[in-house]
Amino acid sequence: MKNLFVVAAALFNEKDQLLLAQRPAGKNLAGFWEFPGGKIEPDESPEDAIIRELSEELNITLSKTDLIPTTFISHTYEQFQLVMPLFVCKKWSGTIKCMENQQIDWVDLYDSRLFDSHPPAPADIRLINFLKKIYKIL
Amino acid sequence: MKNLFVVAAALFNEKDQLLLAQRPAGKNLAGFWEFPGGKIEPDESPEDAIIRELSEELNITLSKTDLIPTTFISHTYEQFQLVMPLFVCKKWSGTIKCMENQQIDWVDLYDSRLFDSHPPAPADIRLINFLKKIYKIL
Repeated sequence: MKNLFVVAAALFNEKDQLLLAQRPAGKNLAGFWEFPGGKIEPDESPEDAIIRELSEELNITLSKTDLIPTTFISHTYEQFQLVMPLFVCKKWSGTIKCMENQQIDWVDLYDSRLFDSHPPAPADIRLINFLKKIYKIL
Repeated sequence: MKNLFVVAAALFNEKDQLLLAQRPAGKNLAGFWEFPGGKIEPDESPEDAIIRELSEELNITLSKTDLIPTTFISHTYEQFQLVMPLFVCKKWSGTIKCMENQQIDWVDLYDSRLFDSHPPAPADIRLINFLKKIYKIL
């Protein structure tokens, strides 16, 4: 099965809230929440890809030095094997604005009802659980 | 620059010692220590790749369900961008035996002299430091 290399970011604001984005209607897994990000284009590093994606999606500018390589998942979907490294990022410039047709929300990583209020895309569940474990010691 | 997708494993034995492998003479970065692993071939998942690599290199059999996706690095070498997910693995079957021309050693992750006794390949330094932080809560 073909690997699909996608990169994602866990943005945390100054209140330690995490940004999740909701997949828009019409897309695969519409309505589920996920980390913002997107496909790593050929000859583009994961860092370059997440910087480009978050500029396009959220109108913000990330700096390479603020990207903390944190964890990854490898998840088997029907059509492809998703391989997704996740950067944690606590600093950016610009004001977040949704440039694409999606909702975003700032959530509390430790909210016990998080998976009910913001059902995550299947691949993102493990990432959120991993962040819960390690966020405080990052 | 071209991405090179490589997968690696942090094997821990029952004494919580970590296996490092020394790059053999003649290879790039000869003498430096690294996590065992290798290139992800096209249409091979990271899990399949690390299972194949550790069978070839160390003559052991890993099971997919024992592979814990833990962290990754993205490291710029002169010729390529190395993108390397790392699985932690504490169980395998078979007895470890070096099948290729390399030394291996079991080390203490928390040994303060580890980087002197076993100088890591540049890309592996961050992985070891990250493991030090999170190994006890994995």
